[in-house]
Amino acid sequence: MAEGSDEIQALIAQMARLPGLGPRSARRIVLSLIRRRTGQMAQLAAQMARVAETSRECSRCGNIGEAAICPICADPARANGELCVVADVADLWALERGRAFRGRYHVLGGTLSALDEIGPDELGIPRLVSRIAEEGVTEVILALNATVEGQTTAHYIAEALEPAQVTVTGLAQGVPIGGELDYLDDGTIVAALRARRRL
Amino acid sequence: MAEGSDEIQALIAQMARLPGLGPRSARRIVLSLIRRRTGQMAQLAAQMARVAETSRECSRCGNIGEAAICPICADPARANGELCVVADVADLWALERGRAFRGRYHVLGGTLSALDEIGPDELGIPRLVSRIAEEGVTEVILALNATVEGQTTAHYIAEALEPAQVTVTGLAQGVPIGGELDYLDDGTIVAALRARRRL
Repeated sequence: MAEGSDEIQALIAQMARLPGLGPRSARRIVLSLIRRRTGQMAQLAAQMARVAETSRECSRCGNIGEAAICPICADPARANGELCVVADVADLWALERGRAFRGRYHVLGGTLSALDEIGPDELGIPRLVSRIAEEGVTEVILALNATVEGQTTAHYIAEALEPAQVTVTGLAQGVPIGGELDYLDDGTIVAALRARRRL
Repeated sequence: MAEGSDEIQALIAQMARLPGLGPRSARRIVLSLIRRRTGQMAQLAAQMARVAETSRECSRCGNIGEAAICPICADPARANGELCVVADVADLWALERGRAFRGRYHVLGGTLSALDEIGPDELGIPRLVSRIAEEGVTEVILALNATVEGQTTAHYIAEALEPAQVTVTGLAQGVPIGGELDYLDDGTIVAALRARRRL
């Protein structure tokens, strides 16, 4: 038994399946935890069990939290007619960190993918269409990744929303803040040039 | 509250402190876990609690496992007079994966470091010296990293063992298996050339 005990090996194997980790990094993390097994490790296990127990998806937007309706959907001040469509909860959190958007969200839970058999129903696009009428949405902002999958999904949603008579917008494309032209891909430079604005 | 709930934020903060992780990778892992909160996440939390509860250090060599004396120290077949000194448990596990060493180990738990105030006592070097007599060790193999810290520690131990009349060896230095000369640092090439052997 190379790695301590069956229990330790099982823990390493479980950790190695987490995104961004592999056997080597999982082993390193588990060893570091075992060194702090009465403090940090026990606390982390308890915290993880607590979050597994208490966290749930907002039944309206798909955000993750502890309530059946998340604080954003529950806040009447955020019913300003703007609905921001994101692929994942991580994207919602990134936008919230920016503090620039004061409307509500709709989490798709992924992007359209023929390969992975993810179609419009899997992404809850019919649910998105029904929310627009129910919540008096006037603008849908498609905040999807600037990748082929993200933009395919954006186009599909824009078409699906045509009957809804709602303004559909997308994030601006251009040079990121702090970006150096020399290091940017050609596509970004072309997009930034086409969308140039008067100063 | 950008990230779900206080509990979720606390979990992300705890995960972000693990070696090799940061806020972004911790967030990604926690979101992926929450998506599988009733299966994978609850299991991982339980497994982590179990390992925190049951794992301990071998009182003889410092290996990590579930017994007071680890299976390697408990196996009489491994009392072959060879004692392999490693800095960390991860190094012990790496050597065990190689299946080439059939003696016993001594885990220092680090390397000498004036900066971090890690001296001979912190590394259990007196305990190593006493093990040599107790266990009839004839050869001590210093399997320490080929870094400045590792080699400083190796030299210190070699000196400390001089009165013990024991053979002290170190790992061979040279070209790693699969290594391409063009990509190796000069130090390795010089060491491999100096230690060249007849074919």
